[in-house]
Amino acid sequence: TVDGTALWADILETAQIGGTPKGGVRRLTLTEEDRQVRAWFTAACTSLGCTVTHDSMGNQFARRPGRDAGLPPITMGSHLDTQPTGGKFDGIVGVLGGLAVLRALHASGHETRHPIELINWTNEEGSRFAPAMLSSGVFAGVFTEQEALDKTDRDGIRFGDALAAIGYRGEPPCGQHPVAAYFELHIEQGPILEAEEKTIGVVTGVQGMRWYEVTLTGRDSHAGTTPMPMRADALLAAARIIEAVSAVALAHGPDAVGTVGLLENRPNSRNVVPGEVFFTIDLRHPNDAVVVAMETDLRGRIEQIVTDAGIALAMERVWDSPAVHFDPTCIASVRAATESFGYPARDIVSGAGHDAAYMARVAPTTMIFVPCAGGLSHNEAESAEPGDVAAGANVLLRAVLDADAR
Amino acid sequence: TVDGTALWADILETAQIGGTPKGGVRRLTLTEEDRQVRAWFTAACTSLGCTVTHDSMGNQFARRPGRDAGLPPITMGSHLDTQPTGGKFDGIVGVLGGLAVLRALHASGHETRHPIELINWTNEEGSRFAPAMLSSGVFAGVFTEQEALDKTDRDGIRFGDALAAIGYRGEPPCGQHPVAAYFELHIEQGPILEAEEKTIGVVTGVQGMRWYEVTLTGRDSHAGTTPMPMRADALLAAARIIEAVSAVALAHGPDAVGTVGLLENRPNSRNVVPGEVFFTIDLRHPNDAVVVAMETDLRGRIEQIVTDAGIALAMERVWDSPAVHFDPTCIASVRAATESFGYPARDIVSGAGHDAAYMARVAPTTMIFVPCAGGLSHNEAESAEPGDVAAGANVLLRAVLDADAR
Ligand SMILES: NC(=O)NCCC(=O)O
Ligand SMILES: NC(=O)NCCC(=O)O
Repeated sequence: TVDGTALWADILETAQIGGTPKGGVRRLTLTEEDRQVRAWFTAACTSLGCTVTHDSMGNQFARRPGRDAGLPPITMGSHLDTQPTGGKFDGIVGVLGGLAVLRALHASGHETRHPIELINWTNEEGSRFAPAMLSSGVFAGVFTEQEALDKTDRDGIRFGDALAAIGYRGEPPCGQHPVAAYFELHIEQGPILEAEEKTIGVVTGVQGMRWYEVTLTGRDSHAGTTPMPMRADALLAAARIIEAVSAVALAHGPDAVGTVGLLENRPNSRNVVPGEVFFTIDLRHPNDAVVVAMETDLRGRIEQIVTDAGIALAMERVWDSPAVHFDPTCIASVRAATESFGYPARDIVSGAGHDAAYMARVAPTTMIFVPCAGGLSHNEAESAEPGDVAAGANVLLRAVLDADAR
Repeated sequence: TVDGTALWADILETAQIGGTPKGGVRRLTLTEEDRQVRAWFTAACTSLGCTVTHDSMGNQFARRPGRDAGLPPITMGSHLDTQPTGGKFDGIVGVLGGLAVLRALHASGHETRHPIELINWTNEEGSRFAPAMLSSGVFAGVFTEQEALDKTDRDGIRFGDALAAIGYRGEPPCGQHPVAAYFELHIEQGPILEAEEKTIGVVTGVQGMRWYEVTLTGRDSHAGTTPMPMRADALLAAARIIEAVSAVALAHGPDAVGTVGLLENRPNSRNVVPGEVFFTIDLRHPNDAVVVAMETDLRGRIEQIVTDAGIALAMERVWDSPAVHFDPTCIASVRAATESFGYPARDIVSGAGHDAAYMARVAPTTMIFVPCAGGLSHNEAESAEPGDVAAGANVLLRAVLDADAR
């Protein structure tokens, strides 16, 4: 089993890097804080006898040699970047749980057949650079490296330039790297495991998700002199669309969700009727056909709203990540590991996107979930129990060894 | 009469200071652009034999001596600051029209009884520092100087510090300065004069207006994993309030307006249900009793919305500028001047706030409106006809001379 105390200490130590007064973490991808936590990762893995490299997308790989150098590695991983007001666990538990596995192997001197590799993926969150899971996406061939490097944040800074600026644009091209299996430990980020008092979620897949960017163009005008019927108020139209996104989610069953998370209002002055609004939409459902139906429904409502309001619409789907079904053999390894410890468990579908969703395209892949308090995530108050995190890392360890023995 | 060609040239010349690619002006108060236009103003007035000073709020006063040094000045004025995406005319026509009056007096060598004074008021727009008309408000005793200096912009910069930084924190305390009369020329900023083919609006008053700041606090959470019924989405609640502000305006007759002009969403990330939204509300009506009724109506709707959504509300009225009725004698001077030129004219109530609204508390005051294209203002495409602007300045000149002769 893993050293749960050391694992918890690692979580608290890395939480200092970008730590917020409210106990959360602000460690946006490719910032100075990201650079610091990457250096921490390299030092920690090196001290356990691993070789640490990074590829052209900045993904970090810590490799522990196996008996048979010709075999592809069995990999574990997740991400160390966070949301602007993120927590100490999202992504971090997967990387540091993997570190705990490496530590256990190192301490016991256990020799595996395959090399064992721990990966820290760049820009999983998708908050600074859309979409999410960008670099595992390049690894899996979903995006080209060039399109990823050319993504810009809301200040217009290029991904490639930010990557070079923190010194993590590596030589080896991203993705030229066969993988025997990929296991990702993560907090659930939802309320189910806690509510049902389960320690482990055996993750069978990831729901489908689509992201959109919308720009509404009306006409700036004076808030005091422009009669209501003469206005072309882009923010009022945006407000109606925000309501429609919620209505569409509610109309497509209890598993559908829809969110407007980012909005920029222009010129953003108290006495100016807003002339332009930019915002994003996130639609998700475990069934891809329902995601398609939600989009059709929403587009119809949006057309009606902008037509009625006399507002010009530009709407683009910027990301489409279909539902994923994980590898039955990997799932079986996780289930067996969970049962061997006697942890209360249930099967679960992930509501969040994860690097595992893209890794599943190029390697046998699955995930292990542990509960988080109140199902709360993407929040500075995100919280998990040390015992649950250690249990997840134990399952990760046994699943990796099971895959190695196969 | 004034030199309309020189006046138009002044408008085009100052429009370079903060000029935008779309032909508008971005000259927010107390910025480097504001400093430049103030220096331009000083040079222009000095060349016409005026003495230019500024007070502790940065208000600039260009004084042309009169025959009787003991008499208080007859004043003209408006502002040279603009909205973030403002036009070439809002405020500017009043200052440069006053300059055209000074130029005409200078050219003719006409000696007035009173000193004649042209004022450039600081922060009329209220876009960078709320509320609007802040420094004429201090002049008129509506706000204390200290509360004005302590106002902060959305980046937390203090008004007093920004004023000192551009070198316009003057020695003379703002407001210790008797005024015989105040006349302000302005574009209408609304559609009425143009629609009725009038050259001059004889302004009888200003409608009532109130500003509010609202902070909604919900709970940041994951856009993919948080079921719709478990959300506390501050942006969705804000969207409903934006709709309610519009509904309240529509419910209180054709003269009521309501606007949400500024909105900040947090943490503003595509895959985070927004946990906090800050926004402003602007309510106006020519009748103060209706403004009160609109506020009551709106507060009721907002309470209902936040209660239903499980969102915490903090709402503050940050500005209350009651309806203003201008001075009958000043209005008569404007009417007589207009008739003497034979300009088509009508009486009008201002939908926008103006420094004249506060000056009316301490001096006989009125305003002169000229049409603007499509009634469009607070927009880079704001436009007015040279002939109309010159006509307005002519009326300003005769009204000032009429007041001087009284
Ligand atoms: N795990 C996680 O929060 N990933 C971010 C991508 C998403 O929005 O689901
Ligand atoms: N004239 C003008 O646009 N003033 C700004 C104050 C207001 O919002 O009415």
